[in-house]
Amino acid sequence: MGTSKSSQLGLVETQYYTFGSLKDGLLLDCGRKLGPITVAYQTYGKLNATASNAILICHALSGDAHVAGISTEDGRAGWWELLVGPGKAFDTDKYFIICSNVLGGCKGTTGPSSINPATNKPYALDFPMITIEDMVRTQKRLIEYLGIEMLLTVVGGSMGGMQALAWCQLYPEAVMSAIPIATAPSLTSQGIAWDEIGRRAIMADQNWDNGNYYEPGHPRPEQGLAVARMIGHITYLSEESMSNKFGRSLRNRQNYSYSFGIDFEIESYLEHQGVIFNRRFDANSLLYITRAMDYFDMTLGTGDLVVAFARTTAAYQFISFSSDWLYPPIQSQAMVEAARQNKLKVAYLEATAPYGHDSFLLESVQQAPVIKAFLDELTNDNLV
Amino acid sequence: MGTSKSSQLGLVETQYYTFGSLKDGLLLDCGRKLGPITVAYQTYGKLNATASNAILICHALSGDAHVAGISTEDGRAGWWELLVGPGKAFDTDKYFIICSNVLGGCKGTTGPSSINPATNKPYALDFPMITIEDMVRTQKRLIEYLGIEMLLTVVGGSMGGMQALAWCQLYPEAVMSAIPIATAPSLTSQGIAWDEIGRRAIMADQNWDNGNYYEPGHPRPEQGLAVARMIGHITYLSEESMSNKFGRSLRNRQNYSYSFGIDFEIESYLEHQGVIFNRRFDANSLLYITRAMDYFDMTLGTGDLVVAFARTTAAYQFISFSSDWLYPPIQSQAMVEAARQNKLKVAYLEATAPYGHDSFLLESVQQAPVIKAFLDELTNDNLV
Repeated sequence: MGTSKSSQLGLVETQYYTFGSLKDGLLLDCGRKLGPITVAYQTYGKLNATASNAILICHALSGDAHVAGISTEDGRAGWWELLVGPGKAFDTDKYFIICSNVLGGCKGTTGPSSINPATNKPYALDFPMITIEDMVRTQKRLIEYLGIEMLLTVVGGSMGGMQALAWCQLYPEAVMSAIPIATAPSLTSQGIAWDEIGRRAIMADQNWDNGNYYEPGHPRPEQGLAVARMIGHITYLSEESMSNKFGRSLRNRQNYSYSFGIDFEIESYLEHQGVIFNRRFDANSLLYITRAMDYFDMTLGTGDLVVAFARTTAAYQFISFSSDWLYPPIQSQAMVEAARQNKLKVAYLEATAPYGHDSFLLESVQQAPVIKAFLDELTNDNLV
Repeated sequence: MGTSKSSQLGLVETQYYTFGSLKDGLLLDCGRKLGPITVAYQTYGKLNATASNAILICHALSGDAHVAGISTEDGRAGWWELLVGPGKAFDTDKYFIICSNVLGGCKGTTGPSSINPATNKPYALDFPMITIEDMVRTQKRLIEYLGIEMLLTVVGGSMGGMQALAWCQLYPEAVMSAIPIATAPSLTSQGIAWDEIGRRAIMADQNWDNGNYYEPGHPRPEQGLAVARMIGHITYLSEESMSNKFGRSLRNRQNYSYSFGIDFEIESYLEHQGVIFNRRFDANSLLYITRAMDYFDMTLGTGDLVVAFARTTAAYQFISFSSDWLYPPIQSQAMVEAARQNKLKVAYLEATAPYGHDSFLLESVQQAPVIKAFLDELTNDNLV
């Protein structure tokens, strides 16, 4: 691969893997079968001869497979450029790194906007309800297809961290270690509430049309999706970072307009986020993926986090951020404690950062060396 | 007045006072004149001979004039029954207590749902933009009408606290003291953001119809108003109180439904709050009142809180709550400091309570004795 100014990784192309059939698809937690399933993914670096240097990166709610390098499709840099690349924490000179778009998404992997082979129309709300575990089952098929039996590590922030945790529970034999970042064994009551309000905003949009807005010429539920995204954005920021960045500053004006127009910078920011999100995300995907997050619960059926970790064998590097109120550090602390009680190998970084939940995307000074050291120790132990 | 089981105050009737005319109305901050203005208010207790025992209670965003006693209209108890009544913190045996619905509201005081005398139709968005100060100017006219030159105290929580602060700035000669509770000299960036998202949810509702939904048979923007209210509710609660009250409990079910229906108790709670709010509140009023809150800024024009308090002469009793993240204690602390720098008489209670912003409505063990003592000292000082 070549190099470019903005990324040492150069151009990266999305690849596709399809498995299953209409008759014999993936069995989902909801009891339905789904197939065929296409998975959009990217890889970086080279798989070694023993296939022992593979790292799976799991993306968050609105992410995609393009984690690093320059996309051949739109020329953009990846969403975790900060930590993934030659010589970086996830060193593409040493590791074979994989990132795939989640099941239910809208960035190339099968989701509600995909064509339902039974009807030749988009699934819309005929798409089955999916879970975080279903996303992981899909990733497992991809990993097998790539010839990997054991992942060196599985890592992700936020909903990506939920996937990492689900990997450890579902496939302990296939995961040597996990790095769950800014995540939780389940959403809090408040987290579920934000998701539900976002879904209601989408469903309240007349253009949502019970999910059937894919036909050419049909307007999209843009206002509802914008409101859902705006709610999300506030929960990703901290009050401190919002005050520092926007405060009560007015947008291009000296005085109040005494109107419902945009007076404050924060209003302009929110509007902008709503507009750009509509360009890149599908409202139905947001419904399905947030529901999967609500349903995720490592302790489902037992209510006991220590029991939940007893099924797992991975070495863990947990990371949380002081100002993250959506996935507060107390939830990571509980997982650290539960894993330790199971005598698993556990390390924990509680990073001080002002950016709220978004810190996992923005902070590298504290994260990078900790991740590097964790991976180094793993690979030294295992003589990669 | 009689007594009843649920309130020692007995039945209380709403009264109305109208001032101004279409030609000569109240001059508002936005530069427009508004008239006539009708104010809905209730009073409790008796004004003494020197008119020195009057207390004005200012309500929050969705409140009304019915602060205590049993309403003759609907038989309901008042919204601050906990602190207002015979022998209570705001002792109706000692004080003459007034509470009026705010300008822009929908509980009897002139607002966007009132008839515009110029058109004989509801104002809707022809209603002028109002400010917290305009609400206070309206209250001042009511107080004068009631024969009161000087309020013993003006008190309120949340937006009610903003009004108390505005009283101290606008009419220092008419306010002996103020009790600003769970409030702030201005909303944070995050506070403005929540308001803006709520307004967008209302305006995105097709039934909002640019505010013109008052005609009989026209559907109301119920879904938008419900989403706005749900957002509000979460910001009024603390994560701790939500976890304690709802957690991840399922509603009338053992397992997930794998649907977008109501699975979790918190979802059921939010839906209920949305439904009941639609029965009692007008969407356009929410737009106007939240905008007034966004605009409120004690430091407007100076950016200096010490200067802002220099205009005031009142004695202050500030109260904030540990778990309130919408109006965090740090904002009350800043006001306490600014008032002290002006050598004003200042007391401060930072109460430990788990209920978030709603604590001001729910907590009395810590608030009541502090308020009682503050008022006792004032009245002893002044030999009422």
